[in-house]
Amino acid sequence: MKAVIEVDYLFPAGSSPEQQAEALAIGQTAGTWDARFIHREAALREHLGEIRALEILPDGQSVARIAFPLANVDGGMGSLLTMIFGKYSLGGTAKILDLRLPADYGLQPRFGMEGIRQQLGVFRRPLVMAIFKPALGLSATDHAEILAEVAWAGLDIIKDDEILPNLPKAPTLERWRACAPILEARRDRLGRDLLYAVNLSGNAAQVQDLARRLVAEGANALLLNVFAYGPAVLEALAQDPEINVPIFAHPALAGAFSAAPAHGLSYRVTLGRLLAHAGADAVLYPAHYGSLPFPAAEEFAIRDILRQRGLACVPSAGVHPGILPAIMEDYGSEVILNAGTGIMDHPQGPASGVRAFFEAWERYGAQESFALSSLPAGPLRAAMEKWGPHG
Amino acid sequence: MKAVIEVDYLFPAGSSPEQQAEALAIGQTAGTWDARFIHREAALREHLGEIRALEILPDGQSVARIAFPLANVDGGMGSLLTMIFGKYSLGGTAKILDLRLPADYGLQPRFGMEGIRQQLGVFRRPLVMAIFKPALGLSATDHAEILAEVAWAGLDIIKDDEILPNLPKAPTLERWRACAPILEARRDRLGRDLLYAVNLSGNAAQVQDLARRLVAEGANALLLNVFAYGPAVLEALAQDPEINVPIFAHPALAGAFSAAPAHGLSYRVTLGRLLAHAGADAVLYPAHYGSLPFPAAEEFAIRDILRQRGLACVPSAGVHPGILPAIMEDYGSEVILNAGTGIMDHPQGPASGVRAFFEAWERYGAQESFALSSLPAGPLRAAMEKWGPHG
Repeated sequence: MKAVIEVDYLFPAGSSPEQQAEALAIGQTAGTWDARFIHREAALREHLGEIRALEILPDGQSVARIAFPLANVDGGMGSLLTMIFGKYSLGGTAKILDLRLPADYGLQPRFGMEGIRQQLGVFRRPLVMAIFKPALGLSATDHAEILAEVAWAGLDIIKDDEILPNLPKAPTLERWRACAPILEARRDRLGRDLLYAVNLSGNAAQVQDLARRLVAEGANALLLNVFAYGPAVLEALAQDPEINVPIFAHPALAGAFSAAPAHGLSYRVTLGRLLAHAGADAVLYPAHYGSLPFPAAEEFAIRDILRQRGLACVPSAGVHPGILPAIMEDYGSEVILNAGTGIMDHPQGPASGVRAFFEAWERYGAQESFALSSLPAGPLRAAMEKWGPHG
Repeated sequence: MKAVIEVDYLFPAGSSPEQQAEALAIGQTAGTWDARFIHREAALREHLGEIRALEILPDGQSVARIAFPLANVDGGMGSLLTMIFGKYSLGGTAKILDLRLPADYGLQPRFGMEGIRQQLGVFRRPLVMAIFKPALGLSATDHAEILAEVAWAGLDIIKDDEILPNLPKAPTLERWRACAPILEARRDRLGRDLLYAVNLSGNAAQVQDLARRLVAEGANALLLNVFAYGPAVLEALAQDPEINVPIFAHPALAGAFSAAPAHGLSYRVTLGRLLAHAGADAVLYPAHYGSLPFPAAEEFAIRDILRQRGLACVPSAGVHPGILPAIMEDYGSEVILNAGTGIMDHPQGPASGVRAFFEAWERYGAQESFALSSLPAGPLRAAMEKWGPHG
């Protein structure tokens, strides 16, 4: 049996699922041909898609499962997306609900959760990650000052805000150069690394060049807005032997693909399948307990897809120390706790923001209550007085 | 007054437009800050967005116009998309209806319609473009045979089907090498070039490398599925001095961004503004008379945006010779007539498919009837017997 990529499409009520499915299986592959190509009949046939299942749902919508030949694509996301949705997306209404790729399609993470733990030398507890805030308007020196505060409090990972590109007022390389000595000093004193995922920007060539320069100067992690720059840019970074650091994939703009109920590709496809096969090591995505309304089922589907390929899960947006018990229930300790304002806007300052997470983790481990009345004075209590518990 | 990028957002009925607009103007820029950043107050303020207008529509939907500082972005599409829709897209429901970029934002086309005409030496009539079909399953030699047929019939431009990546059975460079002698022979005999827009694929670095190799071997045009590979990939090609040939942007996957009524970014933004400022020379997009249902108003908005920056308009999908009078009404002769099956599946073969377009152009110029009964026997009549007139 030939190797295939199976894709599930949702069609709206009132459309003809047979016709739509054929437009995908035939129209997005070899199409039709006439007598002039009889001599190529076998070769052409090999490239045709095949309708595997067709189901009408009770509400009149329908779902088709279509198998596309692996022989039509090159192992990358660009040719895959062009085949499964390319031209069709401009005419036929459909949403891609899920897709199943062979395990050897595309790229594996080079680091993943395990590799990130190895870099940090932290193995049993959840990792704590912060975001530089405010996102725009700070100088390289401001960044270094903020980093120093959280570094000495024991933070594991920090990242740029995704909206901060390479700007003349705070060039990316300068920000890195201002921060690098703090990471070195911490390694010397605490004996373990802090990863700083530096945000990449520019055209595809500039992104790769910037990544190489950063890594050459010691940068130990990178951040890419994969959907705003393009999946092919992530793939190029992940296949570049000079860029041997974990790549954090940010979900910015994924909603433009995934948020509509009857169009585009589901979040589990964009933030799950696609990133898991395009070389990302860690994926940020909205946590349903957070500040963005996000369906829990989609979050858990993403979690499971990422874990199956060894990527790090980074549920994000509106995460603060009081949410820790809820995240532990859903993730256990194999998770990166990523807080922006939930660390930076802590009433006692960013260092206390970091400490509040570690205090919450210890308290959770000791099975102690998170009720405000039972908390001692300190970072966790101050955080929960500001942001409350989960829910 | 500081330079801004204005964006129009559509919010659904039942949401709070003030709240959504603020989430965009503040949340997607510098955000909020506390007393710790008083010393940076001026710098932070400079990066804030501003709500310029807010209108409730009769149906309860609303439209907000937000001005984002140019100082927040780097001149590319990646940082722009991250700012105007990035994280917001994961939570708030909105559709970007339009955006206004300063003329010097991003890239200008290096060739555009005028440059393509110069290359071809064809100035007054519409250009005729074909697509290799079937899309998959042909060898490099098959491609050369098809090319020979249409080349001698006077075709101006041919392109790969967008779903054909660099496959082991018909590697892109081999296809080019098989076709190149035919283009050379035609130049020698007819005294004018035929452009072959070769489809690019791979990761971002491979795309650029492939483009450079092709151009080094004489390729005279390129095709990129910008939305499947990423706008940053187009920008890198357009800024590469080694790649001095026109870039044709294919709209594959744009519907995943643009087709939903209340989510994503409108087609005039993706296929118009974005490509016009990211270095494309020609843009393919669905023609409303064609095989894909596409709103005429959106098509004309794209046409006007592209023309304003000198790009070539390539209305596509379901175009055949009988449609020519309708396209002329909407475009005049400043257009590229792009037909796939409308040339390749002509009953008398692809060469007659090309000739049918030229016959239609002459007939249109002479103001002669396109009624079947008034057509002499020949390529145009055969085409119209198969595909009919427009409508």
